Amino acid sequence: MNNQAPIGIFDSGIGGLTVLKTLQQKLPHESFIYLGDTARVPYGSHAQETIKQFSFELLDFILKQNVKLVVVACNTIAATCLEELKQKSPVPIISVIEPTVEEVINVSQTKKIGVIGTRATIESNIYKKKFELLSADWRMKFQIYQQPCPLFVPIVEENLLEHLAAEKFARTYLEPLLKNNIDTLVLGCTHYPLMKDLIRKIVGESIQIVDSAEPTAEYVLKFLESNNLLSENPAQNIQLDFTEVSDNTKITLERFLGKNINSGINLVNLA
Amino acid sequence: MNNQAPIGIFDSGIGGLTVLKTLQQKLPHESFIYLGDTARVPYGSHAQETIKQFSFELLDFILKQNVKLVVVACNTIAATCLEELKQKSPVPIISVIEPTVEEVINVSQTKKIGVIGTRATIESNIYKKKFELLSADWRMKFQIYQQPCPLFVPIVEENLLEHLAAEKFARTYLEPLLKNNIDTLVLGCTHYPLMKDLIRKIVGESIQIVDSAEPTAEYVLKFLESNNLLSENPAQNIQLDFTEVSDNTKITLERFLGKNINSGINLVNLA
Repeated sequence: MNNQAPIGIFDSGIGGLTVLKTLQQKLPHESFIYLGDTARVPYGSHAQETIKQFSFELLDFILKQNVKLVVVACNTIAATCLEELKQKSPVPIISVIEPTVEEVINVSQTKKIGVIGTRATIESNIYKKKFELLSADWRMKFQIYQQPCPLFVPIVEENLLEHLAAEKFARTYLEPLLKNNIDTLVLGCTHYPLMKDLIRKIVGESIQIVDSAEPTAEYVLKFLESNNLLSENPAQNIQLDFTEVSDNTKITLERFLGKNINSGINLVNLA
Repeated sequence: MNNQAPIGIFDSGIGGLTVLKTLQQKLPHESFIYLGDTARVPYGSHAQETIKQFSFELLDFILKQNVKLVVVACNTIAATCLEELKQKSPVPIISVIEPTVEEVINVSQTKKIGVIGTRATIESNIYKKKFELLSADWRMKFQIYQQPCPLFVPIVEENLLEHLAAEKFARTYLEPLLKNNIDTLVLGCTHYPLMKDLIRKIVGESIQIVDSAEPTAEYVLKFLESNNLLSENPAQNIQLDFTEVSDNTKITLERFLGKNINSGINLVNLA
């Protein structure tokens, strides 16, 4: 394995850029190839078979770039077919879900956890299953309260966060979770960090909000260290590949990455 | 041309079923093959090139079914590439847009027209262009006020019409149109007839709401008559083809078609 090889990251669209941003900051000597299936986004309300087929095409494409590691920066994809992706891949695959669950186990006091995500993610029960698996050693019983929030992705993509109606939908989704006295809320979709201010307004200051970016970047760093895969490149290369590039792709990228984009943006075809 | 051949109808998803329903009623001796790209819906916020590529794949598939006529029951597709579809097709193609514009020309008194649709439909200016073209003979000047409503399709698909936040988004979209004293509002997306009650509540009783289903069915009937293409089949066959069939496809179909579905629902692959 070539330590200088880039890390591949893929997502159904642009949500995974919230993870890329943190990875870039935490791993300044690593290079990244990001692949977003913007032509077919969003995946979250689609059927499992559709999500699998699209995800396999994304993996095929990213593997052709000779990456040393693949990060699945999309909860919907990871919830639907992470094991199948791992079986197909000759390089290691890390998803956002396991690091996020580990972080929650570290920070929650009451073990009453709220999880929000797309319909596909919530219906897969992946977070419930992972909590059961990972918390077995602690002899702790987690209570997981889940809520699909299918309107959140369109609201973020359309930049309607400031609209009063966005808050109303958010209250409808989040208030039932609050009734269960959760102490931690998992943002189980990589779009949701862009809604953090609105979510914070509704859930209040006492609830811990955990998103995937920071724990996943920590997890990737540790993984590279312990497998002697860290790069020592002085420079960091970022390649951004999308299946659709529209007039406002650059504007959207800046909203997500939070700075001027100097990287090239490539329109790619998965076929 | 075989008069007994079915009519092909295609759409990005299920919205075109509002057109199919009216066609079925108006043309009881015709058979229909409906194709919805449910695996990749919605198209409305995607780039032109993406919409074109997907639309060509839909046309290829429907032409293989030996249809005598193709109805493009999706404003987004028609707005983006109707001419290219016509060039590719050996059978006639009718879209929902021209019949809808003709209907508006018939019913509007003040010639101040509001048009709502997806982002792709509105940005194409197709309705503006068609009004200019079709109204030239009348020496009338139409004033067209357009508004993209990107949240409407997710709200319909998620069955959130009763939610107060849906009304709030709808008010944000529709109230600027009302300030222009429109007398007619065009529902420029085949999903929107399912929102008619909510739209009516906001725009009031004095504005005429025109949707595509009735004018398109009338247009198809006249076209078949004048081209001697009417079928005399005593029975009507309906074939429903979708690129994704999920657990709630049947429920959704019933919401759109408004009765028990006896037709077979086929999962098809466009490749």
